Amino acid sequence: MGSKYRELKERAWEANREIPRRGLAIFTFGNVSALDSAAGVFAIKPSGVAYDKLSWDDMVVVDLDGKTVEGTLRPSSDTKTHMVLYRNLRGLGGIAHTHSTYATGWAQARLPIPLYGTTHADHLTEDIPCTAVMSDEAVERDYELETGNQILECFRNRNPLHTPMVLVAGHAPFAWGESAEKAVYNAGVLEEIAKMAFITRGITSEAVRLPDRLIRKHFERKHGKSAYYGQK
Amino acid sequence: MGSKYRELKERAWEANREIPRRGLAIFTFGNVSALDSAAGVFAIKPSGVAYDKLSWDDMVVVDLDGKTVEGTLRPSSDTKTHMVLYRNLRGLGGIAHTHSTYATGWAQARLPIPLYGTTHADHLTEDIPCTAVMSDEAVERDYELETGNQILECFRNRNPLHTPMVLVAGHAPFAWGESAEKAVYNAGVLEEIAKMAFITRGITSEAVRLPDRLIRKHFERKHGKSAYYGQK
Amino acid sequence: MGSKYRELKERAWEANREIPRRGLAIFTFGNVSALDSAAGVFAIKPSGVAYDKLSWDDMVVVDLDGKTVEGTLRPSSDTKTHMVLYRNLRGLGGIAHTHSTYATGWAQARLPIPLYGTTHADHLTEDIPCTAVMSDEAVERDYELETGNQILECFRNRNPLHTPMVLVAGHAPFAWGESAEKAVYNAGVLEEIAKMAFITRGITSEAVRLPDRLIRKHFERKHGKSAYYGQK
Amino acid sequence: MGSKYRELKERAWEANREIPRRGLAIFTFGNVSALDSAAGVFAIKPSGVAYDKLSWDDMVVVDLDGKTVEGTLRPSSDTKTHMVLYRNLRGLGGIAHTHSTYATGWAQARLPIPLYGTTHADHLTEDIPCTAVMSDEAVERDYELETGNQILECFRNRNPLHTPMVLVAGHAPFAWGESAEKAVYNAGVLEEIAKMAFITRGITSEAVRLPDRLIRKHFERKHGKSAYYGQK
Repeated sequence: MGSKYRELKERAWEANREIPRRGLAIFTFGNVSALDSAAGVFAIKPSGVAYDKLSWDDMVVVDLDGKTVEGTLRPSSDTKTHMVLYRNLRGLGGIAHTHSTYATGWAQARLPIPLYGTTHADHLTEDIPCTAVMSDEAVERDYELETGNQILECFRNRNPLHTPMVLVAGHAPFAWGESAEKAVYNAGVLEEIAKMAFITRGITSEAVRLPDRLIRKHFERKHGKSAYYGQK
Repeated sequence: MGSKYRELKERAWEANREIPRRGLAIFTFGNVSALDSAAGVFAIKPSGVAYDKLSWDDMVVVDLDGKTVEGTLRPSSDTKTHMVLYRNLRGLGGIAHTHSTYATGWAQARLPIPLYGTTHADHLTEDIPCTAVMSDEAVERDYELETGNQILECFRNRNPLHTPMVLVAGHAPFAWGESAEKAVYNAGVLEEIAKMAFITRGITSEAVRLPDRLIRKHFERKHGKSAYYGQK
Repeated sequence: MGSKYRELKERAWEANREIPRRGLAIFTFGNVSALDSAAGVFAIKPSGVAYDKLSWDDMVVVDLDGKTVEGTLRPSSDTKTHMVLYRNLRGLGGIAHTHSTYATGWAQARLPIPLYGTTHADHLTEDIPCTAVMSDEAVERDYELETGNQILECFRNRNPLHTPMVLVAGHAPFAWGESAEKAVYNAGVLEEIAKMAFITRGITSEAVRLPDRLIRKHFERKHGKSAYYGQK
Repeated sequence: MGSKYRELKERAWEANREIPRRGLAIFTFGNVSALDSAAGVFAIKPSGVAYDKLSWDDMVVVDLDGKTVEGTLRPSSDTKTHMVLYRNLRGLGGIAHTHSTYATGWAQARLPIPLYGTTHADHLTEDIPCTAVMSDEAVERDYELETGNQILECFRNRNPLHTPMVLVAGHAPFAWGESAEKAVYNAGVLEEIAKMAFITRGITSEAVRLPDRLIRKHFERKHGKSAYYGQK
């Protein structure tokens, strides 16, 4: 009686377990999903379950209409946000939503994180964007779905694979990537960048962005056509 | 020769052990109690004993007049504060008092913690209240009992089950819940919210509260009549 | 071929090992000593040895003239500071010198730590004092001995048992107590108070001291004649 | 089939493993190298490999022209920076490049770290220098080589053995020493100094440098001709 989605659920489970290991959320906060784009389903953390109590089989498999396909637990309350992102942003294989402390601090300040240094430029070439605050009307409609729409609105002129993270104003960050593992990696990078930027701003009120040429260089050595960071 | 209150003491003990695990106090600071409302008694940490030296049987059982009913050790010096809260606030099953670093930082600033984001709104719908500073007269009377009264005064027009935490001005936080376990959970949430708010304020002096509709939404999806966060 | 001072050295060793456990110094920074007042000697950490490489037998026993009585290693370079304090401040059984991060941050700011809350008042009834900066002349004479004198100067009108800690301006904290164990405890308390005060000050530039009556009350319930904190 | 450079690679490997142990970088950020000056080669971390996946044999041995002499993996993308430093700064046996959080915060602020206290003076007698921001022209030429040149420019009138660390503006720190082990030690010291200075500045906007005489004294007791810190 094996699961049809065992491998997908295991990937989602492994990625969820990275959240507490990396200190990206306390208690049950946050959730990670992994997409099987061929099957049109994703596996996501069940709602309100502590990370250390999770087994791979607790992951809930949901289709891109938000219907549970496999699993007995209720999926994350943020499931519709994941669904909206998978449906509209090309190339995503995983999404990580955390309430990591410094990134959430910036989201609460409703400010993008300025690109102050190469740690940031190694991963994206612009400030980490921050959505608008959700209108009362949108909250009334379908909150989690609208959170997804808020992010889409913010990414109207952005390439989500080049900018794999966002701050939802007044809420917290979302990060993504080609896999669930990469999504959590990006969530971890975001938290570190958020902390560094907080420190820089604490040292001087006159901090400025890195020059464009330097931003490009750092990004391209990791992600450009002739990237030379990493193996192979 | 078993204890009549073994199960209650074990619950209190388990909750106390969460304090150092969650980094909510150093050394012997802080204390958690668990109430048996039917029996009209609560089990509380003994005074000045290090968390890693505690056994379940060290918990002291006290009645609602503050008299020790079982146990050979002296109960927490804050026992009367717990007693006042159990006697006057309906529905409390556990109380956690910590000196967690950021929450205490706010208590020392004598300021409520502004509701800047959804991490906060997931747990309560208003700023985390801060009591008035205790008058010299009250300090003279019965300090720990008056600490309870200070909190009651602050909760005159509040529902303690909706706002399960408070900052005692110049002192430190108290949190509570339907159980001792939930009380410590709320103490952990408070510390995280306190740290996030500190960061937000450090980033900008113009941080504003979350819009009301968004606050309500987040609270209700976890605690409202048609809550859909968590299982069941 | 046992050591005449084995028990003293073991006490000093245990206390030194608390320094990294409590996160009070990195690498080889800091040192703790334990006094045998009857024998007129103290055991102290050897200079520049990493905490995790220490064995009890590495502790160096020094008399109150600073002469090594037992041990093959060179004692801490701060040995003369310990010596001056033991010789002049009554009732000290142990001294802990750390470079703990927040306390050192205050020492570098050359400011006493304001008594903002009861965590502080539980341990002392005044701001944590900060010495004057050492004069060039004193540096020329005998630096570590003069560091002791700097502290003595600062304690001319203070009771060292009531105020068991000090910031040396531009340098770092010293703490002490009736035993080496208690000295490290006080060093840990100091670091926590220093961090809380930093946070309070970050939240508001208008933080004020706790009212005197409240300070007294908190101190006395732990240290006064009719103290009721702790056991016995 | 042993490695000709096994011992060198093991030294580099051990030093790299200290990076995550000391919390000096997350994920794959940072890299440490160890020089064999007689052989004119250095062993360095492979690019983009996680610290906990490294074995000693993964280290890449590179000569002082930047050519791989032994190893199948691609060396760190920062290899040319290490090369430039080894070629031009006398006495270096190891180099550590991290993105440690507070030091990077200062690098992003593009400010030297002021010498506020003796923790700093114990290791160097001046502010921790910060390079100029790299010009667009230099970025175009050969980025990692130019990073080395940037540092050389900054050290034109400095003794690298007396000032074994630098902030690269908008980027992150480099530290070095007579061995790879010492280089990581200096990287750890730098991060601690950076955090302390951040705290000091947060407490007061009027923090001042330590007096010269005190700086000299602290440095000389550790590094001067008649140093008396440490053993031997």
